[in-house]
Amino acid sequence: MFKPIEWVNGKVRMLDQSRLPVKVSYITCNDYQKVAEGIKKLWIRGAPAIGIAAAMGVALGAQKIKAKNFDEFMRRLEPVFSAILSTRPTAVNIAWAIKRMRNLLLSKKTLGVEKLKTVLIEEAKKILKEDIEVNKTIGRYGEKLIKSGDTIITHCNAGALATGGYGTATGPMRTAVAEGKNIQVIADETRPVLQGARLTACELMNDKIPVTLITDNMAGAIMKNGEINLAIVGTDRVARNGDVANKIGTYSLAILCKEHKIPFYVAAPLSSIDFSIPSGEFIPIEERDSKEVTHIAGKRIAPLNVKVRNPAFDVTPAKYITAIITEKGVFKPKDLYKLQRQIQNPKH
Amino acid sequence: MFKPIEWVNGKVRMLDQSRLPVKVSYITCNDYQKVAEGIKKLWIRGAPAIGIAAAMGVALGAQKIKAKNFDEFMRRLEPVFSAILSTRPTAVNIAWAIKRMRNLLLSKKTLGVEKLKTVLIEEAKKILKEDIEVNKTIGRYGEKLIKSGDTIITHCNAGALATGGYGTATGPMRTAVAEGKNIQVIADETRPVLQGARLTACELMNDKIPVTLITDNMAGAIMKNGEINLAIVGTDRVARNGDVANKIGTYSLAILCKEHKIPFYVAAPLSSIDFSIPSGEFIPIEERDSKEVTHIAGKRIAPLNVKVRNPAFDVTPAKYITAIITEKGVFKPKDLYKLQRQIQNPKH
Repeated sequence: MFKPIEWVNGKVRMLDQSRLPVKVSYITCNDYQKVAEGIKKLWIRGAPAIGIAAAMGVALGAQKIKAKNFDEFMRRLEPVFSAILSTRPTAVNIAWAIKRMRNLLLSKKTLGVEKLKTVLIEEAKKILKEDIEVNKTIGRYGEKLIKSGDTIITHCNAGALATGGYGTATGPMRTAVAEGKNIQVIADETRPVLQGARLTACELMNDKIPVTLITDNMAGAIMKNGEINLAIVGTDRVARNGDVANKIGTYSLAILCKEHKIPFYVAAPLSSIDFSIPSGEFIPIEERDSKEVTHIAGKRIAPLNVKVRNPAFDVTPAKYITAIITEKGVFKPKDLYKLQRQIQNPKH
Repeated sequence: MFKPIEWVNGKVRMLDQSRLPVKVSYITCNDYQKVAEGIKKLWIRGAPAIGIAAAMGVALGAQKIKAKNFDEFMRRLEPVFSAILSTRPTAVNIAWAIKRMRNLLLSKKTLGVEKLKTVLIEEAKKILKEDIEVNKTIGRYGEKLIKSGDTIITHCNAGALATGGYGTATGPMRTAVAEGKNIQVIADETRPVLQGARLTACELMNDKIPVTLITDNMAGAIMKNGEINLAIVGTDRVARNGDVANKIGTYSLAILCKEHKIPFYVAAPLSSIDFSIPSGEFIPIEERDSKEVTHIAGKRIAPLNVKVRNPAFDVTPAKYITAIITEKGVFKPKDLYKLQRQIQNPKH
């Protein structure tokens, strides 16, 4: 399977996902600006993956800093933090990764600047490695929700390509297959950027998990035929009350699931859960370039100068969500506060 | 505005809608086979428009027939009827048009073969002209459902391009604008063939009706914002019980409307209502080439050999439909039987 991001010889190597599946090409980032460009231009995308990219971008940016002491080092790191933070607003993972890197530095300030540069590289690599483990754990919890014979619908790509590896929403699918369960996946193509068609279908085919591609607007008709047993999607940010921001179209899919009495699950690593906000209303929704709607693969498909809307995400209220699958277990949205307590007081 | 189909100098001239909006080109059909090809390949599409094309195809096919008497003429017309009937299964308008042409011939058999050839041309032109009048009447009835300030969502293209002119679903919009009402239209792009992006957006912009293009999967999020007041779509076939077949995605849109308490209207000329079938289950759903999903504007957007579903239509059960707007008035689905009675016993 493709590796979406790696630290190679002191540089960050990204798979350019914007060109998949037609072209498999890698981009080597020599500086944090290139990492930020990669996040903005969707060479790398997916909340956990851009969290990892953010951490690697910070580590990369730190290497070039010359500073006499810790305070100067931190001051010179600020532009790195803010360049990366400003790339994409919806996924909380970027802020999560930067906070983690910053807190680590503060906790180890006595090590000295040169040593801290190495610490940052190690931490970024650790975040990547941990992410894969988290997804495997999500896979083990989520797998229990899947019966042999089930057909699972998913939206966008919350797969290996959206993470360090293994995937959040695809985690339970991979584990189910590993456990010998016979499953089918329906992948929504996910306009406008087509991550379902370009990435999820590609990734599952590569791994021999049976997948069928549909356009987003076919989901309802296929549910009405009784062909879907459950939905599993990823998320860019979960609010404290269980509201979920995810790729545009997730909300519509959740409503279709409700109407057809199909369980709707969200796979979310803790790094995507934002306990600091009370509800989905507080999640900023990125509006992207109208060209993503009016052009596909460089070809214009709409009238010149047509007015366009292009919100990249939507918020699915907690009431449409059957449960959230995390690396700490499966929680109903209304029980997410228990997870918060568990994290804050790990002994209880 | 473009004319989707015309009878010109003894030939059928079609606008090639498959190339809009990038290229405006016309195709002249010299024989009925070319008309059938145009229907299959979506040079012309939209239930009323392909009904008109079917009638013109029959008229065109008839001109080349050499027959000594009426029975021979009818026998030689059979291949014409069946070639046109077999083009596309879902819209009932093709069968409706052919039945009308056939019944006309049977009622005028004494005129003789040469005269009947002229009668067929006149009838095909009459069907085109009537269709425009029907749409204007639908416009007058439907306009009453629209308030100034309303935003209307529509799916696919049930506009001037899908009909003889004026449009079924766009009829009420055009009339509302003519009446001085201030309206906005949201056009779903309508994957896979993108009739919303390529045709509806184009047609409304040309006629200065404010339109905003969205991808199909944005509809729910925009409804949640409170931005949509009503939905009006067209149809390929309405069953006796008010179930409606229309472009894939219509069913999902109707569910989203229900969830957001938004009225969902279907504009349907009598030529699209099939009183011979009791429910939507009896409507054949066309499955089209998977390339419509895997390629856009000639560019591949999915993995090679990916498994694909491509039902071109879905059925929206009557319970999701607020009312059906016809040229005989606005009917709740459960009252469609009254319309049937009205047609069968015009005096009552």
